[in-house]
Amino acid sequence: MLPFSRVTVIGLGLIGSSVARAVHQYMPTVRVTGYDADPAVRERAREISLCDDIADTAGSAVIDADLAILCVPVGAMGKAGEAIAADLPADAIVSDVGSCKASVLAALSEALPNACIIPAHPVAGTEHSGPDAGFATLFHQRWCIVTPPAEASETATVRVEEFWRRLGANVERMDPQHHDLVLAVTSHLPHLIAYTIVGTASDLETVTQSEVIKYSAGGFRDFTRIAASDPTMWRDVFLSNKDAVLDMLQRFSEDLSALQRAIRWDKGDELFDLFSRTRTIRRSIIEQGQDDAAADFGRHHD
Amino acid sequence: MLPFSRVTVIGLGLIGSSVARAVHQYMPTVRVTGYDADPAVRERAREISLCDDIADTAGSAVIDADLAILCVPVGAMGKAGEAIAADLPADAIVSDVGSCKASVLAALSEALPNACIIPAHPVAGTEHSGPDAGFATLFHQRWCIVTPPAEASETATVRVEEFWRRLGANVERMDPQHHDLVLAVTSHLPHLIAYTIVGTASDLETVTQSEVIKYSAGGFRDFTRIAASDPTMWRDVFLSNKDAVLDMLQRFSEDLSALQRAIRWDKGDELFDLFSRTRTIRRSIIEQGQDDAAADFGRHHD
Repeated sequence: MLPFSRVTVIGLGLIGSSVARAVHQYMPTVRVTGYDADPAVRERAREISLCDDIADTAGSAVIDADLAILCVPVGAMGKAGEAIAADLPADAIVSDVGSCKASVLAALSEALPNACIIPAHPVAGTEHSGPDAGFATLFHQRWCIVTPPAEASETATVRVEEFWRRLGANVERMDPQHHDLVLAVTSHLPHLIAYTIVGTASDLETVTQSEVIKYSAGGFRDFTRIAASDPTMWRDVFLSNKDAVLDMLQRFSEDLSALQRAIRWDKGDELFDLFSRTRTIRRSIIEQGQDDAAADFGRHHD
Repeated sequence: MLPFSRVTVIGLGLIGSSVARAVHQYMPTVRVTGYDADPAVRERAREISLCDDIADTAGSAVIDADLAILCVPVGAMGKAGEAIAADLPADAIVSDVGSCKASVLAALSEALPNACIIPAHPVAGTEHSGPDAGFATLFHQRWCIVTPPAEASETATVRVEEFWRRLGANVERMDPQHHDLVLAVTSHLPHLIAYTIVGTASDLETVTQSEVIKYSAGGFRDFTRIAASDPTMWRDVFLSNKDAVLDMLQRFSEDLSALQRAIRWDKGDELFDLFSRTRTIRRSIIEQGQDDAAADFGRHHD
């Protein structure tokens, strides 16, 4: 049996539009209603027939929903919750796709004190944004972390988990605080570092920006992909998961200083040891199907 | 006219074996002789018919060469030069593929005081190593930076440049010091940071290694690719280009501290400004054919 029959997607960017497409593809009898705060996005979503219906207000979008998924930047979750509060059916489940879970749960609980809230985070994405960037297979073989609050209904949680399984994801349950710590290292810190190095490289006096671009295949270009991710989304992530991000950043900086010292003092063995250790992590990621085994991410060489 | 007719490749790893394959494919009449200090690699090279001939000593490999390319870690260049010194024909050109150019030029000039040395650096590679990892199209549409010393023969330089063009590369000439500065930012610093973050992530008490692997699609996995590169090669690069690497690292650390402060003090606008700026660099890299336009590096989603 399908876990839901009327799904509303609030926010039609990369993730929201992928959810809409995936529901159409894998649960074709489910009715999908969409809404986005930006009129141009609603217009575009209608043009490409992204949903069965695009509503012009958040309230009218959820009026008969049994699942409402908020796919907006984590800093906008509270406002999105308020916008649907008056019209949300009493038995509807509210979920989201945000990259931070403790702050989102707090914001939604405040905005929707009587709603059944089951936050979730599909760990998937690309560097592209907007309603045209989404695709139905985005969640395949990726993990979706579901973070029900302690008092959440088990039935509601299981329905949300089943929803994500139907979209092709593997599902894991976690408490919100632990989620935020795990994602701080597997996602937030990498983005922060990528943004930083791309900024550093474009601010040099001795090397021109055109040289940086030309010779980027030496490694730099790998960082530019995630540094091209949506600025609003990422600003909100760092501010919403501040403590865990600052903690990971502190550890990273210490490790970087140790490496800097090893270079300065010609400690080749220390470098070699670390560089050998990091190879095995890559191997495990590939073995577990979380990345491509093909050399160079399978980039095209011809 | 072909720039060379008898090419010797010393060191048959990813780059050396790619050079051998590319010469076979694009200049099929050129005779390629190979040598590697590791007997197991020579054995494997013979099994897969990598070259027309695999010599058992570096000296016998170069005895009738008109071009000898050293494809060994930059810290091993001096030794490789010494190994061919006695047998190198007087009119042969010696080149290399190292990622640092000032230190390599110094080492080769000392080992081969009378030879015509034209260092070069093809900015291309993958995270894989060894004679099986190479492929003929590795240098296609990539840049090869040629760094002739001030006193170098123009004819010899032009021949080396023509050699790389035949393998599909675009060629640029640069002085060694400037090369080392450019590559410190486009290649060495990215590798150092990738190695560091992968190390940091595997040393946490609160997040398990298996969680890091599972949820790596949030961004972390992008870093693991270059952190899986050859440990010997990279140890040598950092020690050989120490000053430029430490300078870039210092700038990066300052920028990271500024971002850390912006997060701590909720300066969302500063974050947003940087994150918007870094998007345009990605766009230029794609426009100039130095990376794939496909989302997520064109990773497979199905």
